[in-house]
Amino acid sequence: MPKATVERLPLYLQCLQAMGDSETTVSSDALANIAGVNSANVRKDLSYLGSHGVRGVGYDRLELCVQLRRALGLVDKWPVVIVGVGNLGSALANYQGFDASGFNVIGLYDADPSKIGEKVDGHHIKSMEDLELDIKEHDVQMAILTTPAAAAQAVADTLINAGVQSILNFAPALLKTPENVNCRQVDLATELQILSYYQATRIA
Amino acid sequence: MPKATVERLPLYLQCLQAMGDSETTVSSDALANIAGVNSANVRKDLSYLGSHGVRGVGYDRLELCVQLRRALGLVDKWPVVIVGVGNLGSALANYQGFDASGFNVIGLYDADPSKIGEKVDGHHIKSMEDLELDIKEHDVQMAILTTPAAAAQAVADTLINAGVQSILNFAPALLKTPENVNCRQVDLATELQILSYYQATRIA
Repeated sequence: MPKATVERLPLYLQCLQAMGDSETTVSSDALANIAGVNSANVRKDLSYLGSHGVRGVGYDRLELCVQLRRALGLVDKWPVVIVGVGNLGSALANYQGFDASGFNVIGLYDADPSKIGEKVDGHHIKSMEDLELDIKEHDVQMAILTTPAAAAQAVADTLINAGVQSILNFAPALLKTPENVNCRQVDLATELQILSYYQATRIA
Repeated sequence: MPKATVERLPLYLQCLQAMGDSETTVSSDALANIAGVNSANVRKDLSYLGSHGVRGVGYDRLELCVQLRRALGLVDKWPVVIVGVGNLGSALANYQGFDASGFNVIGLYDADPSKIGEKVDGHHIKSMEDLELDIKEHDVQMAILTTPAAAAQAVADTLINAGVQSILNFAPALLKTPENVNCRQVDLATELQILSYYQATRIA
């Protein structure tokens, strides 16, 4: 599946989930409009799911949700750990959409001993030693990294050694990871600079 | 310039900036390796800047930085506002890389009267009334939105009415914005679901 399609599937799923239950069908035009995507792209993207809709009727909304969740690997909930409980880690831990999105936060971890035992959104903050044990015990494959930049690589190494294969990295540091590890970086500077490009192009 | 190229330029800039000053030249292979991008892609991307490097030598590092900054519209610093000073807004406000990335945070704003006047990373939190005045006074075109989802659309409307044209939206809400406004959403669920796709594909 093309990378751009993969990156749009979560958006479609969120749009469909946000619609009222009274909406049993949805046209590609309606979905395109809500998602802010060209409707030819929507049809192309959904065709990768083997979903073609019915002419004049559209797609069955719930069936499409099931297909999207299956394509995205959201069948069972993924257990997830959050490492680094500063402001950003706390903000993410408080996010109410994990369950609906297909994820289950099994623990928050921090290297600062003074934070251990503190409670954030129902989770007690645990130590880095607990992190390794919990990853192995719960077969955790996905982690959210929200440490300071200077600590990020060492924490990533720990995660990977313990068995994590997918890392969502919010620390402003480029991680070196083995080829079999999937790392996705969310970086404030990058996002702002992309916006800057389009803003500057508009003005020019 | 292709969207994928635009989205990789900030990464190249960050890699080049992170190199020591002793490195006066850089080869496309070296840059590709640090950035984790295929080196043919690096050469293709940089050719859009009119930058071709010298065979056997590579690119002049500082000159390439200048070209990247120019392409990304990072010539003068962009004034930026941050609206919504919860955990996430505070985390972003504390980010130390704004200046080096080409941005200048001119103020933090929150709708909660009890927060007004509090200080975060040297900035006093200001009111939503100040927000509109400041946007006009400083000709602010870019905003970072970190309010709760329920408040996001109203705040976006306020920003746009006051003159903002580019919004980086961290609130988990799809914004409806006019065509002349550029909105980029950073969404935790989306990022995790994209990782889920690749993790599930690997296992399957």
